[in-house]
Amino acid sequence: MKTYIHKDIFKTELGFELPELQIAYHTLGNLNENKDNVIWICHALTANSNPEEWWPEMVGQGRCFDTDKYFIVCANILGSCYGTTGPLSINPKTQEPYYLDFPLITVRDMVQAHELLRIQLEIKKIKMVIGGSIGGFQSLEWAILRPEIFDNQILIACSAKSSPWVIAFNESQRLALKADASFGLKHEKAGEAGLKAARSIALISYRNSFAYNSTQAEDNENVTDHYKSSSYQAYQGEKLIRRFNAYSYYYLSKSVDSHNIARNRGTLEEVLQSIRVKTTIIGITSDQLFPIHEQKFMAEHIPGSEFHEIDSPYGHDGFLIEYQQLTRIINQILKLKK
Amino acid sequence: MKTYIHKDIFKTELGFELPELQIAYHTLGNLNENKDNVIWICHALTANSNPEEWWPEMVGQGRCFDTDKYFIVCANILGSCYGTTGPLSINPKTQEPYYLDFPLITVRDMVQAHELLRIQLEIKKIKMVIGGSIGGFQSLEWAILRPEIFDNQILIACSAKSSPWVIAFNESQRLALKADASFGLKHEKAGEAGLKAARSIALISYRNSFAYNSTQAEDNENVTDHYKSSSYQAYQGEKLIRRFNAYSYYYLSKSVDSHNIARNRGTLEEVLQSIRVKTTIIGITSDQLFPIHEQKFMAEHIPGSEFHEIDSPYGHDGFLIEYQQLTRIINQILKLKK
Repeated sequence: MKTYIHKDIFKTELGFELPELQIAYHTLGNLNENKDNVIWICHALTANSNPEEWWPEMVGQGRCFDTDKYFIVCANILGSCYGTTGPLSINPKTQEPYYLDFPLITVRDMVQAHELLRIQLEIKKIKMVIGGSIGGFQSLEWAILRPEIFDNQILIACSAKSSPWVIAFNESQRLALKADASFGLKHEKAGEAGLKAARSIALISYRNSFAYNSTQAEDNENVTDHYKSSSYQAYQGEKLIRRFNAYSYYYLSKSVDSHNIARNRGTLEEVLQSIRVKTTIIGITSDQLFPIHEQKFMAEHIPGSEFHEIDSPYGHDGFLIEYQQLTRIINQILKLKK
Repeated sequence: MKTYIHKDIFKTELGFELPELQIAYHTLGNLNENKDNVIWICHALTANSNPEEWWPEMVGQGRCFDTDKYFIVCANILGSCYGTTGPLSINPKTQEPYYLDFPLITVRDMVQAHELLRIQLEIKKIKMVIGGSIGGFQSLEWAILRPEIFDNQILIACSAKSSPWVIAFNESQRLALKADASFGLKHEKAGEAGLKAARSIALISYRNSFAYNSTQAEDNENVTDHYKSSSYQAYQGEKLIRRFNAYSYYYLSKSVDSHNIARNRGTLEEVLQSIRVKTTIIGITSDQLFPIHEQKFMAEHIPGSEFHEIDSPYGHDGFLIEYQQLTRIINQILKLKK
């Protein structure tokens, strides 16, 4: 992991000023002579800047994003807890971490931070920017902000605007965080029990009944407690609190809520129609968080866009799992002569 | 509301002994001379024994369950906080409320309590037993336990066994309860913040994306916080904590998890095939908590059963809302000569 420190004021979309910005990132492979082999991967909610860790079947030698061929960049998003400025960063005014004094951030702020890093890395052209879920939000906002930089963008399992349904899931998670009275206290471990519950809620939205009913079925009809499905929820919650922070989770969930490419720009349709980057949209049939009609809506309005459907039982999480179908679609785009 | 106190030990399915049982119930209308006009309504998770309150379009003069024609009985379920014995009842051993010392109860225990009340009320025949959601669970278990009592049962938006998917939703809610450190303390208001979050999670399972996206859409594309959908979740959580108790919620949610008519009886198919009560099963097309294939499964196996599909955008909550469609189906059954 590398770190870039941007020693200048960073003004957020909502008008707050962070005195400086730290951006954690990974690069894999090498920039070629023509500087035209850059792939920028935008990570999802609780992931980090190392895509070989969270997308191992997609990134690495001989994989779809081949580290022998491409110069791959991935930056930890603003607000996260994996090295980029977030609520655990020191607030220079108080010399303590921000915690809940961190400002509300938006996906557009994340993209502005990516832009700072891109300039620092002297990358002029990006062959492909790709992301699933909030990673797709970033790609979309970036393609609108700086269309001239990108040859292609790939949007997976995402939408042009977070729906009331997505916000209801997020609000339930934040209510769980707030149910934990330690959330708000000034230490890193605050809100852990709330975060555990929040993760359990999120998991439901990432999968669907089919996935649960096939993987968490009981072998014994006579049990009356300690169901596999209960243990699974608790276990996944435990796993997250060992690697993630409740404050970061809170802020990132708020940034998902406010995702809307139309904000202060026009109608959703107009903004989609204005997109000039060659766009490929991939939806997952069983995604109940970002149902496939939301991807179809984008495809209908983004000029020249391509739409692909991935058939998967895994719901929204399919974007992390269905690497063979993803590879097939993305390889076709990567192999096209410009 | 009336109260029956059963002054004898009540042994639960899992072997715990409650020294006595209090059952709160409502009766509406009058028992006729032939004593053949009894309708028993089984209520759902957080409802009470007054169906005129929570099912107003279905119950009352001139309604489907006409109080001029029928003798309607509804009992508050075991574990609830509306008058029937539950975790807030006094534990005679400690002279304090049980709270988390209350035993795990099952739907079969609820039905045993209904049986005690039925005997007390000297009801020999029930023309129709009906319930939605966990109300349907009760009807199903009761029809298996005492088939000779019932002319008809109506099962709405329920299943023969709680799926891992249902349990995952419930576990998330219990994790939210437990995230509230006051849950476990010995007072009535303990766990309120957790219960608020739990209700928000439950609501998601009771509706679906279509319902949220049509009722909670924003008028203004430029907002970045305080979304309607967020306010709605918090408001509904607040509403529940004013009328319900976190301990009762916890125990009832566990009783939903353990619902399985096959427990200690055989296979699901065998137990469904053994049902002798005339059964009508009603599913709601958009129910994501108890998807329609679970009702179809029951209909395929219960001999002579009838299956109806209700077309509704409201998801699981449709059983409380789609009174016209319900009335049409139920009227046909009520009008049949025996």
